[in-house]
Parts: sequence; C-alpha cells; structure tokens
Amino acid sequence: MERTEIVVFDYDGDHIREQVVASVDECLQFRDAPTMTWVDVVGLHDVEVLRKIGECFDIHPLVLEDILNTEQRPKIEISEDALFIVLKMLSVDERTGEVMGEQISLVVGRSFLISFQEAPGDVFENVRKRLRDAHRRIRERGTDYLAYTLLDAIVDNYFFVLESLGERIEGYEDELMDDPQTQTLRELYKLKREAIFLRKSVWPVREVLSVLGRGDSKIVEEGTLPYVRDVYDHTIQVIDTVESFRDLIAGMHDTYLSNVSNKMNEVMKVLTVFASIFIPLTFLTGLYGMNFDYMPELHWHWSYPVLLVTMLVVGVGMAVHFYKRGWL
Amino acid sequence: MERTEIVVFDYDGDHIREQVVASVDECLQFRDAPTMTWVDVVGLHDVEVLRKIGECFDIHPLVLEDILNTEQRPKIEISEDALFIVLKMLSVDERTGEVMGEQISLVVGRSFLISFQEAPGDVFENVRKRLRDAHRRIRERGTDYLAYTLLDAIVDNYFFVLESLGERIEGYEDELMDDPQTQTLRELYKLKREAIFLRKSVWPVREVLSVLGRGDSKIVEEGTLPYVRDVYDHTIQVIDTVESFRDLIAGMHDTYLSNVSNKMNEVMKVLTVFASIFIPLTFLTGLYGMNFDYMPELHWHWSYPVLLVTMLVVGVGMAVHFYKRGWL
Amino acid sequence: MERTEIVVFDYDGDHIREQVVASVDECLQFRDAPTMTWVDVVGLHDVEVLRKIGECFDIHPLVLEDILNTEQRPKIEISEDALFIVLKMLSVDERTGEVMGEQISLVVGRSFLISFQEAPGDVFENVRKRLRDAHRRIRERGTDYLAYTLLDAIVDNYFFVLESLGERIEGYEDELMDDPQTQTLRELYKLKREAIFLRKSVWPVREVLSVLGRGDSKIVEEGTLPYVRDVYDHTIQVIDTVESFRDLIAGMHDTYLSNVSNKMNEVMKVLTVFASIFIPLTFLTGLYGMNFDYMPELHWHWSYPVLLVTMLVVGVGMAVHFYKRGWL
Amino acid sequence: MERTEIVVFDYDGDHIREQVVASVDECLQFRDAPTMTWVDVVGLHDVEVLRKIGECFDIHPLVLEDILNTEQRPKIEISEDALFIVLKMLSVDERTGEVMGEQISLVVGRSFLISFQEAPGDVFENVRKRLRDAHRRIRERGTDYLAYTLLDAIVDNYFFVLESLGERIEGYEDELMDDPQTQTLRELYKLKREAIFLRKSVWPVREVLSVLGRGDSKIVEEGTLPYVRDVYDHTIQVIDTVESFRDLIAGMHDTYLSNVSNKMNEVMKVLTVFASIFIPLTFLTGLYGMNFDYMPELHWHWSYPVLLVTMLVVGVGMAVHFYKRGWL
Amino acid sequence: MERTEIVVFDYDGDHIREQVVASVDECLQFRDAPTMTWVDVVGLHDVEVLRKIGECFDIHPLVLEDILNTEQRPKIEISEDALFIVLKMLSVDERTGEVMGEQISLVVGRSFLISFQEAPGDVFENVRKRLRDAHRRIRERGTDYLAYTLLDAIVDNYFFVLESLGERIEGYEDELMDDPQTQTLRELYKLKREAIFLRKSVWPVREVLSVLGRGDSKIVEEGTLPYVRDVYDHTIQVIDTVESFRDLIAGMHDTYLSNVSNKMNEVMKVLTVFASIFIPLTFLTGLYGMNFDYMPELHWHWSYPVLLVTMLVVGVGMAVHFYKRGWL
Repeated sequence: MERTEIVVFDYDGDHIREQVVASVDECLQFRDAPTMTWVDVVGLHDVEVLRKIGECFDIHPLVLEDILNTEQRPKIEISEDALFIVLKMLSVDERTGEVMGEQISLVVGRSFLISFQEAPGDVFENVRKRLRDAHRRIRERGTDYLAYTLLDAIVDNYFFVLESLGERIEGYEDELMDDPQTQTLRELYKLKREAIFLRKSVWPVREVLSVLGRGDSKIVEEGTLPYVRDVYDHTIQVIDTVESFRDLIAGMHDTYLSNVSNKMNEVMKVLTVFASIFIPLTFLTGLYGMNFDYMPELHWHWSYPVLLVTMLVVGVGMAVHFYKRGWL
Repeated sequence: MERTEIVVFDYDGDHIREQVVASVDECLQFRDAPTMTWVDVVGLHDVEVLRKIGECFDIHPLVLEDILNTEQRPKIEISEDALFIVLKMLSVDERTGEVMGEQISLVVGRSFLISFQEAPGDVFENVRKRLRDAHRRIRERGTDYLAYTLLDAIVDNYFFVLESLGERIEGYEDELMDDPQTQTLRELYKLKREAIFLRKSVWPVREVLSVLGRGDSKIVEEGTLPYVRDVYDHTIQVIDTVESFRDLIAGMHDTYLSNVSNKMNEVMKVLTVFASIFIPLTFLTGLYGMNFDYMPELHWHWSYPVLLVTMLVVGVGMAVHFYKRGWL
Repeated sequence: MERTEIVVFDYDGDHIREQVVASVDECLQFRDAPTMTWVDVVGLHDVEVLRKIGECFDIHPLVLEDILNTEQRPKIEISEDALFIVLKMLSVDERTGEVMGEQISLVVGRSFLISFQEAPGDVFENVRKRLRDAHRRIRERGTDYLAYTLLDAIVDNYFFVLESLGERIEGYEDELMDDPQTQTLRELYKLKREAIFLRKSVWPVREVLSVLGRGDSKIVEEGTLPYVRDVYDHTIQVIDTVESFRDLIAGMHDTYLSNVSNKMNEVMKVLTVFASIFIPLTFLTGLYGMNFDYMPELHWHWSYPVLLVTMLVVGVGMAVHFYKRGWL
Repeated sequence: MERTEIVVFDYDGDHIREQVVASVDECLQFRDAPTMTWVDVVGLHDVEVLRKIGECFDIHPLVLEDILNTEQRPKIEISEDALFIVLKMLSVDERTGEVMGEQISLVVGRSFLISFQEAPGDVFENVRKRLRDAHRRIRERGTDYLAYTLLDAIVDNYFFVLESLGERIEGYEDELMDDPQTQTLRELYKLKREAIFLRKSVWPVREVLSVLGRGDSKIVEEGTLPYVRDVYDHTIQVIDTVESFRDLIAGMHDTYLSNVSNKMNEVMKVLTVFASIFIPLTFLTGLYGMNFDYMPELHWHWSYPVLLVTMLVVGVGMAVHFYKRGWL
Repeated sequence: MERTEIVVFDYDGDHIREQVVASVDECLQFRDAPTMTWVDVVGLHDVEVLRKIGECFDIHPLVLEDILNTEQRPKIEISEDALFIVLKMLSVDERTGEVMGEQISLVVGRSFLISFQEAPGDVFENVRKRLRDAHRRIRERGTDYLAYTLLDAIVDNYFFVLESLGERIEGYEDELMDDPQTQTLRELYKLKREAIFLRKSVWPVREVLSVLGRGDSKIVEEGTLPYVRDVYDHTIQVIDTVESFRDLIAGMHDTYLSNVSNKMNEVMKVLTVFASIFIPLTFLTGLYGMNFDYMPELHWHWSYPVLLVTMLVVGVGMAVHFYKRGWL
C-alpha cells in the first residue's frame, strides 16, 4: 500500500458531496465552507502529505507525530478548538484467526473531522452508507456526532473480534481435556499473547471515552453525550470480556498442566502394573533356568506344574491388588 | 418461546387490576391513569412490539437497543423522568447444575414500571403475590418501591444460585483428595468458568445499586432509600461469596495438581521397590543360567542353597532399606 | 440451644442491676429509665421474641431481618437515633482446631444497647465483670462506651484465633519439608479455606470501625472516638496478619508441590540407577545362557572369569558415572 | 535483659547533659525545663516504670497499652500537643542471616521526646554522636528534628537489611539452576516468609511518614517537613525493593519447580534409553535360551554370529533413534 | 572513570557557547548571566566537586545527597525557585543484551539546568546537536524546554530498550516449545529479573511527569506543558509495554513447565510401551528356559513355532492397544 488516499465527504442536512482528492490543497475549499467535512486519510507512508494536511488544518506538530507513530497508546487530547483521539482498530486474520491491530487517529474540529488509517478497511463502510442517506440523523448533526459514529463502529467491531476469540477458546476446551498435545500448548500461549495485546489495546479506550463523555470539550454538544456514554458502556463490556478471557485462559493452562500430570500418572500405572507382575515371575523362571548340578527341585516330577500354579497365583494376586487400588 | 407476552398490573392502595394484553395499544389507558402500572414484558423476539412500547412510553432509542441486546452489562441510567436498569437474573440448570443467566431490564417512570425478561420465570411470582394482597406496603408505595421489590427478588435469587454452587464445590472437595480423576478436573474447570461468569454478572450490580442508593434520581423517594441500601448490602455479600468461591476453586486446583503428583509419587515408589529388589536377583539367576563349560560353582554341592540364601538376604535387605525410607 | 435467653444490665455510676428476664415486656421498664441498659439476647431461634423486642425498642423491620439472617456481612448502619452493627465473633473448635464464626448484632440507642448472639459464649464475660465493678470508667460512660468495650472484646478475640491458626501453620511447616503426605495436603487445603473464611469475616470490620470512628453519629461521643480508633487499628493489624497467613499458606502450597516433585525425582534416580546398572549385565548373562550349538566362547577356559570381570567393570563404571552426576 | 534502662539527653544549642537515670522521678526536672529532652527507654519488661513515665509525661492510657504490646502495627497518632509513632526496627541475625524485628515507639511532645525500645541496639548511636557535637544542626532544632533523625536512622537501617536479604537471594540463584535440593527449597520458603514479614513491617511506615509529612501537627515545624519527606521517599524505595524481592522469590520458586521437572526429565530419558535398548535384546537372548527339543536355529552354524550382528544393529539403531530425538 | 567532567552550554536565541570547564568556579560567570546555561556533570566520584556545585548554585543539602546516592528512586521535588528530578537512564549491554540502569539527576533553575550522570553516554547527543543549531525552537525557549528535551531523550531511549527486550522474548518463544532446556530456564529467569528491574525504574517516572505536567511549578511555562504531557503519554506506553512483558514472561514460564511435563510424558510412554510389550514375552522365554526334568512341552515338535506365533500375537496385540491409546 504505497499511496496515501484521501476521500472527502462534505455534507449538511440537504446535500452531500463525496470526492477522492488528488492533492491536499483541494481540501482547503471544504475547510472554510460552513458544511461538515470528513477527510478520510488512508495510508500513512507519505509523510509529506500528512505535513501538508497538518499545515492546512492547523494541527499541532506533536499531534502529527502521534499520528505517524503507529505504536501509539489509545488516548484523547482536548484543546480549545479541536479533539485529538487515537484508537486501535482490531481485526481477525482470516487465515490464522489471530487478532491484529491498526491505529486510527481522529482530529475533530468544529466543522471538519480528519481520520487517519494505516490500511483501507470496511469498518467505516456502514458510516459512509448512513452519511449518503439524507434521512439519517447523522446528516443533521455536527462533527461530534460523526466522531461518535466512527468510535461506535470501532468499538462494535471489538465485539466481533471478541466473539472470534471466544470461539477459539471454546474450541480448545475439549482438546485440552481429551488429548493435551504440545500443539495445544502452543495455541494456548498464542491465545494468552493475544489476550495481552487485546487488553493493552482496549483498556485505555475506557479512559478516552470517559473523558469524552464528561463533556469538557466545547466541540461535543450536550445532545451527543448520551451517545458517547453508550459507547463507553460498550467499552466497559469489552474490557470485562477481555478480563474474563484472561481468567479463562489462565484456567485452561492450569487445567492443561493438571491433565498432563494426570495422563502421565495413567502411563506410570500401566508400566508399574506390568513390571510389578512380571518381574517377580521372570525371576522365578530365571531361578529354575540355572545350571547347578545339585538342584533337587529340577528332578521332582511335580515341580513344573506346581511352579506354574504358583506363578499364576502370584500374578493374579498382584493384578487383584492393583485392581483394588484402582490402577487397572 | 415465540410470542412476546405482556402482563399489566394496574394498582393503587384500594384496587388492583391484572390483565394479559394482546396489543401494546391496550397499555395506553394505564399509562395515563394516576394509578401505578407494572407492564411485565416476557420475550424479546418481537422487535416490533418493543418498538411500539418504546414509542408509547417515550423510551430513548439507545435504551431500546440496550434492552434488545441481551449481552448487556448490568448498568443504570438516570434521566430526568425515568430510570433504566439492566441486571442479570441467574438460575441453575436443573439437569446439569450449571449456572445460567438471563437479562432483565427495568424502565421506571413516575407512575409506570416496564420490565423486560427473555423467558418466563417464577422469580417475580412472589412480588405478584404481594401486589395482589391489599394489606401489603407495596400497594401504597410508588413505582420506586416496586422496582426495589423486583431488584430484591433478583438479588435474593443470587443467594440461591450461590448456595447451589457452594454445594457443588463442597461435593468435589472429597473427590479431590481421595481419587483425582480427569472427570474431576473437567468439573473444576466448569466451576471456574461459572465463577468467572458469576463475577461478570454480579460485580456491576454493586455499582448499579450504589448509584441508585445515593438518591440522585427524583423517581426514588427518600423513604425507599434504606430498602435500596439493604439490597446493596446483599449484593456486597454476594460479591464477597463469589470472590471466596474463586479463591476456593483456585485452591482446589492447586490441591488437585499436588495430589496427582502425590499419587504419581506413590506409583513410582511401588515400581521402584519392585524393580530394585528383583532386577539384581534376576541378574544372579541369569549368571548361573549361563552355559560356559568351565564354571566351577555349578558343580559344587552347596552352591544352590548358598545362592538362595544370598538372594533372600539381598531381597530382604533391600526391602528393609526401602521400608526405612518410607517407600513401603 | 432451643430457648432465647435475655439478660438485662441496668446501670449508672452509682448502682447496677443484673437480671434474667422471662418475657420481653419486663425490658420496658428499663427502656424508659434514664439509666444505661444492656439487653443481652442469646439465641435467635424464637422469632416471636425478637419481633417483640423490635417492637418494644422501635427497631426497623429491615434491621430485624438482618439480625435473624446469620449469614450477614459485617456492617454498620447509622440512623438518627440509633446505631446498628453486625460483626462476626470467631472461635476455635477445641477438638479440630478449626475456626468457626458466629454472628453478633448490636443495636445501640442513646440509653440502651441490645446485643444479639447465636450461642452463649464467654467473650463478653470480661465486659460483664467490668460493669459490676463500680470504680470502672465503663460505669460512668454512655452506651457508646459499652459498645466500644463489646467491639474491643470481639476484636481482641480475633488475635486469639489468629494465634491458634499461626501455630497450626507453623506446625505444618516442618512436615511439609520432611514428609509431604496427602494428609498434609488435606490440612493445607483446610487452612486455605479457613483463611478465606477469616478474610471474609474480618475485612468488612475495617469499614465498620472506620465509619464509626469518623464520628458521624450523634450516639458516639467525642471522648469515645479515640477508643474506637484504637479498635480500628487492631482490626487493621488483624487484617494484615490474615493477609500474611494467606501469603504463607500459598507459599506452603508451592513448597509442597516442589517438594513432592523433588521426592519423585529421588525415587526416579534410584530406579534409574538400579535399572541402568543391571539391565545391561542381565543381557550379558542372557547372551551366554543361549543354547546354540556353535558358540565358541562357551568352551574357552577363561570365558567365565573374563566375563565376570567385564561385568564388574561395566557395573562399577556405571555406578561411578551416576555418582558423579549426583544420582547416588 | 531484665531491667529497664532510662537514658536522658537534655540539650539546647549551648549545652548538653547526658545522664542514666535510676528512677522515673528524676526525669521530672527535665520535663519542665525549656531545653529539649530525649528520654531513651530501653526494655519494656517493667510495666510499673512505664506506668510512671506515662503519668509523669501525661501519656494517654491507650498509647501506653500500644507501647507495651510489641506486636503493634506501625502507626502514627496526632493529638493536640503530642505525636505518637510506632515503628519496627529491623535487624539481621548474625548467625542465621534471618531478618528480625523490634518495636520502637516514640512519644514526641513540644520539648521532650520519649523513645521506647525492646532491646538495646546501636542504630541510634549515630544520633547520639551528632547530639554531642555542638556544631550540628540537630542541637539547634526542636524535638521534631530529633524525631526525624531517629526515624531516618531506623529507615536507613532498612536498606542495610534489604542489602543482606538481596545478597542471600542472589546466593541461591545459582544453586537453583545447577543443583536444586530440598535444602534450597527450605531456604526459599524462609526467604518468602521473611519477605512477608518485611512487607508487613515496612508498608505501614509509608502511611506514618505520609501523615507526618503533611504537616498537620503543630509539633512539626515547617522547616522540618522537607526532611520528613526525604525519609518518606526512602520508605517508598524500601517498599519498592521489598516488592521486587517478593517478585524475585516467586520467580525463583517457579524456576525451582521447572528445574526439578527438567532434571526428572533427564533421569527419565536415561532410564528409557537403557531399558528400550536392552529389553528387546534380552528378550532375544531369552528366546534362544529356551530348551525346546526342536529349535532348528540352535543347530545352524551361523546362528550365533548372525544373532550377534542382528542385536548390534537393533541396539545401535535404537541408540541412533534416541540420539536424534535428543535423549542422549 | 575517575575524573568528573563538566561541560557548560550557555545559549540564547542569538549565540551559543560550549565549554569544558576545569573547575566549578568557572561556572559562576554563566550562573549570573541572563542567558540559559546547561551544566552537564558526568561522573559522581568526586564528592568535593559536587559540594562546590551545590554551594555555587544554592542546592539544598538533601538534594545533593540524593544526587550522590545512585540507588535513588525516580522522583520530582518542586521548590520555590527550582525543580529537582531524578530518573533512570536505561541501556542495553551490547555483549549480554541485559538491561542496565544509570541515574540521571536534573536541577532546573530559572536560567540554569544542571544534569548529573554517572557515566558518559550518547543519549543526550541529539539534544546537543539541536542546541548548536540556531534555528531550532530549543534555542528560544527557557530551561523548562531544555529539561523537557532531556526527559524526552531519556524516555525515548526506553523504547529502544523495550524493543531489544521484546526481541529477546520473541527469540525464546520458539525454543520454549521445541526444546525446553535448563539454559532456556536460566534465560527466562534473567528476563523476569530484568522486567522487575525495568518496572521499578519506569513506574515512578509516571508520577514524576504527571506532577510536572500539572504545571504547579513556576519554572515550567504554560507553553511547555503540552510537551511534558506528551512525554507523560510515552511513559504510560512504556509502562503498559513493561506490564505486557511481565505477563508474557509469566506465560512463557507456565508454558515451559507444561512443555517439560509434556515431554516427560512422551518419554514415559516410550518406556512403558517397550517395557509392557517385552516384559511378558521375556517371561515366556524364561519359562521355557527352565531346566526341570519333566516339562512335556519341551519335547513336543510344534512347541517352538506355536510359542513364536503366540509371542507375535501378544506383542502385536499390545502394540495395537497402545497405538489406539495414542501412545505410539
């Protein structure tokens, strides 16, 4: 993904204009218009383009730096006339099922909102659809409501990711009990690593939305606050579920370890039963396989059958003993 | 459970009317009456019915969404003229003994209370009985007191669920010590999963009732606050017990693992004792079973009895040694 | 313990009257007198008696319910003209050494204090003695000071319980190292369960005394507050010790598990040394025990002594090898 | 240590008087003088002496009780005209290296400071030296500064104890890896117990110094506060280190357990390799050691060498196989 | 590194002077000039030099003590006309890859900033370069901005250290699964120890920057606060990552232990399969190797082939049985 693509949505209640812009300068016309403007920037490779956007929309250099550094922790910054929000958009790798993250930054001004994504994705597609529909509430509200819908889209997507992770966890539960393999262990460790990643990505969102929901910023109107708080509640729910997953995975690991010990115990019992029954008997056969000249038993007529019976009795006796101890 | 059933209780101190309504429109008459109205909605499949109720009672669309999404986290929302409460009603599956949860939502207005349940259940049956009894305090109080009795019924039911879980835990304690099996492990993991679920369901209730007990809402009268705080205390007690259960289950797991190791140790000792006693003896029998032409011992007269005695001494000596180490 | 016993202490600086009352009505005279009155109720089986006491002393029905429900969490409730305190009184079962709990409820009014116990016990005996002594400060102070002495007696008793638990923990420490048995494991699990129980009983007491020490209630006079805070400090100390015990018990469990593994390792080494030395030797004896017609070694004169020496060298070599690895 | 020893330091900027007093009454003269007085009481056995000191310096009976109860939790109490501070002085047993604790109580008035120690020690020796030196700041400051120097001496001594513990921890790290013995386990458990004890002794000191540093007491002058905060910072550092030690010890335990398992695995591999190679070979020798009349192979000329080669191939093959699996 | 080296940067927007000073007295001229002065002190061995600097710049003796004690916990102290900041500068040992720490102290006055380092390093090199460039913002701002750039350089360096640690963690992940050795365990323990060290070094930085960002000090200008908060955000991110690493390392340890158990289980299965198949067969060969005179089977013609077939059937049967149990 080499080029940085910029799509502009310029709208108010009455009309909407959707346009892929070739150069940043084209955005200037929208900035100064009284209509709402959503500048969707996809691809952060072209630093020059970002610098221009920063100049054009008067973005603080530290904010620009944060946008470019995609290892940023989710955070919010409230200034006089703008909001700056960084979040992680999560997705599930279709092939491996692993959770991956991408950084989304939003700069929200009074009449414009700029979103920065690393790669194109379809999480915002639904928002675009609603924008194109003239009868939707989103067309009559300001950039704060647009910001809410984008945040809502991101957080709703978390649930999808959690569901996928939850299914993988459940999938390993049976394997864990019936047949604990090194492969299962490998998967457990992966799950653990992903849960740690999820936690790191989602926990700070709580604070971001809590700050946003307090209504300290003049950008966010009173009427939008209940919506923000709704997203906040969803985030709490996501965090609760992530924590439950962590507990579950820890529990699975304990169970794995216990089960391996259990299986080893079974193996040991089999070995012990076999060895304990046959080793004494083999000793007896060895005894009468010796070549001493003077071994009177060898010449008795009933020696062999008596020995056979003795060995049978010993063997069966041992087996019964082990059976009673539950080893058979 | 396909149909959504709506039962209306309309009451004041003097009379009560209980009625199953066929359509939402029938509720309108009760809404505008000065009497208290409890609309009990069971079944959330029919979205259209819920939408109508929302319109009729002027419920915010976000609240309606929360009611329909049954994976909601327990929460409370206080608006000017209404309360919105979401809780989990817990129950024990009669067949498997497992803990299950169902979402209960309450919308409490000044003269009406609407409750939404996923499935019919008898937790509220007791409340209905008290309503029908003209001499009960509940008939003379407002919807806030009705809300309290419903919350109380739900939280009291938690104790029943905890008791059932506590009994299952105790049931496994002995099994754990005497005979640790894979099955026990499976049950332990189940218990852990249920404790995590319980925790997730019950923890947020604490906050809900704490907020409610602060008396910020105009809906809740001063005289009802002590009752709300009583339910709050019960919730704290439930949470304490859930945490204790988690600790206990973790302790059981550690104990399980230790006990399996212990049993394995016993098995190993048996094997080692047998092998260590008989392997050297078998070697001796093998020695005199060799067919060399020149083995003078084979021709001595006392060889055999001397060897037998030697083997007896070695065997008994080993046994005594192991006995002293506590392996026998 | 079938009957509910009620003992009344009515006192001021000058005189004291101690009386076992047969019916609740007898208490009425004391209630209205200006002197301090301690009504000590032992046994909670007779609900009717409690109901009467509640009526007589004007106790809120929710409070009465809490008194009867002996699974209550320690808590305090401050109302206009009374305090309601619930605590756990702990004791050590003399036979098994296990920690047990009993619920104590105190209703403290301006001139009366009612205490409710499940079973008769001697923790309050010391308080009674001090009451009977005219020269003690307790006789000149109000019910708040009496409440303090009762709380102090209960919390002081916690130290006794902790000491007993501490001794049991120390008792198992050596057993843990020297000879880890299933029985030890059982005891460890019991200790863990009791520590969890202790924690659940003692933690909330901290909050109870913190609230009481804040001096929000008009019942508690300024001069009594330092005494309450002293009990509070003791409670913190109890909690610290309980937490240390939990840490210690967790540490003991880890040590147990490690030690079992250690012992198993020793067993395995013994087995391995025996098997590894004798199995190759036994193979050699088997080799020359074969009955092939053409085995030239069998007919050589020095075969047998050479083989014996070889086996000795192999055996001693292996033993030396294992000794160097520290397995012997 | 039977007798209680009392040493009085009476000083101001110009002169100092150091005196061992025989009876408490001798202290009275110093109490009423305008000079600063440090009464250092060593030994708490003689309750009568302590009672007299309490009377003489007007100490609250609850405070006296706390001084005598040497199991007290570190705490601070601020009253109108005095400070009461309880701390633990830690030391390292020279023989065993174990951490031990002793209670130090300070009663700080406007012109006197009384310190109570259980046993004589040299932690305060440095303070005494500074007192005797006329040019030191301590001689010109009040009792609050003296209290600070004493607290500083105690907390500085914690670092010494931590260092000693840190060295012991490091000392076991290698042992842990190379040769995990039951003895190491015993030491680890001891370390854990001491870390728990340290934690219990040091954590509350943080709060004591935080309260003291807030400057709520009139006894502590503005100019002394930076010094108190400096000690506070040291305490935080001590706590950080104790927590790190706890983490390290927990990590050592996990490592121990893993290493024992590892070693056991090695032992098992040796056993398995020996048994798996020789058991099949021994079977073969047994086969041709049978005495059937009709076993044609016994009479073939090349049987024996062929069998020898076969056994060699099997044995070497197995050995190669195990080598490839990394078991040799 | 024996000598203490002092480098002075004296600058304003127009000019800059960079000078290695031989004695502390040379600094005096810069102190009183209106230009900004950065005194970079490298090497803390020469206590006398530090004492002089302290006198010259009027540094509180407690602060000097903190600078000299290089085991200090990161902290900030705000006084009327100066800031005192202690941090840890982290670096990675190039040979072993281990994380090491060095103490950096900053004393920030209105027109001077003194930095104290233990050893020379190049973390501040970038800051020096920016200072030398006349067009940079740093030349026009006060000492607060200089302090920010130094803090930023230190915290940015943390990310480098974290990255290096992250790579080492990832490097062991595969080793962990495929071939768990004692060496891996040793490395894991090292990682754990370093993570504990990192945590101890980085956590307090959060508070330092939080206090600094609050703007309580008059030294820090309004315009510098956003920059400080940006460093604060980076610190939070560092802490998050350190915590993730701790979780990951704990997960790796659990995985290690489970994997060792797993491998042991495999070894046991191999042993058990071999022993269980051949021990009964060897018993049979022993049986017919006995030398009794009357063993009719020995003389039958088909005995040997029948026995061979029997043994084949038994052996294969056992093998099939074990295969079905998944042991082969």
